[in-house]
Amino acid sequence: MAFFYYRTIYFADTDAAGVVYFANLLSICHEAYEASLVAAGIQLPDFFRSQTVAIPIAHAQIDFFQPLTCGQLVAVQVQPQALPQPSEFQTQYHLYRVDRSEPPTEADRPIAQASTRHVCINPTLRHRRDLPDFITHWLSQWGPD
Amino acid sequence: MAFFYYRTIYFADTDAAGVVYFANLLSICHEAYEASLVAAGIQLPDFFRSQTVAIPIAHAQIDFFQPLTCGQLVAVQVQPQALPQPSEFQTQYHLYRVDRSEPPTEADRPIAQASTRHVCINPTLRHRRDLPDFITHWLSQWGPD
Amino acid sequence: MAFFYYRTIYFADTDAAGVVYFANLLSICHEAYEASLVAAGIQLPDFFRSQTVAIPIAHAQIDFFQPLTCGQLVAVQVQPQALPQPSEFQTQYHLYRVDRSEPPTEADRPIAQASTRHVCINPTLRHRRDLPDFITHWLSQWGPD
Amino acid sequence: MAFFYYRTIYFADTDAAGVVYFANLLSICHEAYEASLVAAGIQLPDFFRSQTVAIPIAHAQIDFFQPLTCGQLVAVQVQPQALPQPSEFQTQYHLYRVDRSEPPTEADRPIAQASTRHVCINPTLRHRRDLPDFITHWLSQWGPD
Repeated sequence: MAFFYYRTIYFADTDAAGVVYFANLLSICHEAYEASLVAAGIQLPDFFRSQTVAIPIAHAQIDFFQPLTCGQLVAVQVQPQALPQPSEFQTQYHLYRVDRSEPPTEADRPIAQASTRHVCINPTLRHRRDLPDFITHWLSQWGPD
Repeated sequence: MAFFYYRTIYFADTDAAGVVYFANLLSICHEAYEASLVAAGIQLPDFFRSQTVAIPIAHAQIDFFQPLTCGQLVAVQVQPQALPQPSEFQTQYHLYRVDRSEPPTEADRPIAQASTRHVCINPTLRHRRDLPDFITHWLSQWGPD
Repeated sequence: MAFFYYRTIYFADTDAAGVVYFANLLSICHEAYEASLVAAGIQLPDFFRSQTVAIPIAHAQIDFFQPLTCGQLVAVQVQPQALPQPSEFQTQYHLYRVDRSEPPTEADRPIAQASTRHVCINPTLRHRRDLPDFITHWLSQWGPD
Repeated sequence: MAFFYYRTIYFADTDAAGVVYFANLLSICHEAYEASLVAAGIQLPDFFRSQTVAIPIAHAQIDFFQPLTCGQLVAVQVQPQALPQPSEFQTQYHLYRVDRSEPPTEADRPIAQASTRHVCINPTLRHRRDLPDFITHWLSQWGPD
């Protein structure tokens, strides 16, 4: 099952070149990641305030194929997957320009793709720990079959 | 008629105090303004790329009553109004914490309120000009009766 | 004595209109406020991590007189002042376009001016408290004689 | 010859986890890139307003080794290099926590590293073109011997 997040491009996302500022598109991917957590029943305020679990990003990358301008609508497909290390996971993002809040069709080509790798830590002790159950559940909900 | 914009607070909106960074709430008000333009039939890409009309902000202000944290949902009421000068208008924003994408009830108190004053210019010549018809239409659609 | 903060405008500060996005100029004012705290000997990491003192912004406003574009240099004059309430202070900002990191001359006119009003609270209990000594010291260092 | 950019971490850079928001560190790398252009004599306002040359980012990636908090100072080493394609170049960034605006010592380990790949286009026609002379000069100034 695939998770899609729909997001209008706002003026604040753009830069003087008239298109979305490169780093802001990674923020939009993170919004999509947050929305996929909520859609799996995770309470974001609890998650981000936790004293025992934090999942900072260790690596992020993004490829840009087409620019996006103010007012355009983008569909972000979020695909998380487990990694060999029990403290890590990875999320892939495919971004499409769409006309309405519906998944892209087979014919649509992504305008950008990105990925983030996350490492689960105990934020107080700052050492690695295994992923908590709610993340394992989220991985099984939106990850590959 | 009142226009409402609904917006989840994302991690990128927050700061190290754990709540929305003050200037980011003004950006969210601007998103609401943009959404109200779209809802009045205005094509944002055309609007923001126009060589003959630009409507920069001359003044902005915001009052904060309650903090917002990541994952919370905010409803932004947008109320534009004409001003004595034919080149200017003002927009007021009332922000409410809500549980779903529905207008707040009479009992709800705003968690913040803001306003922006805009001046219409010719962006090439950089002098004032009267508001274009599509803004006058937008003012009549969402403004006071 | 006046405190000045110098800041180059970066691409990330701009929007598709080719100038600094309105809310980003308030962020630049906040940077200037932070720099004035450091210049008064305040350790920012300690300040922003304190469990007993937080000084959120209750009100912010800004007037724009001239646009700023990428690569330009701005001088921000920071002028804090005490208010009648012992839990509050206000900061005024005058922004000037300058050619080098030196205070503007008498002939220079500000391209924007802003102010923020801050309320000191205990962040754990979330009630008001008097300003701590290090803020009173900062007020006396950069405030009016 | 190496170019270093020094940047204090401001409150706006942080998120509710108390550290710099991941995408904002890429923005700080872009600031360092802009500063290296200026240090090679390039006029940023002219560069970013050009109708004949634009150099959008086609790929960006970043690895995070240690978090950064508000008030800390970071040194960003910028190392551009030519690529086989005459329309492209790449920039590498090594970020260090430092106590003052001086290059890190041999003993210092980077707290993050990033890279961006840029493609030179004609922004009006939106097709590739060779890098302009001022970029070739910049590459020779800050690139590998």
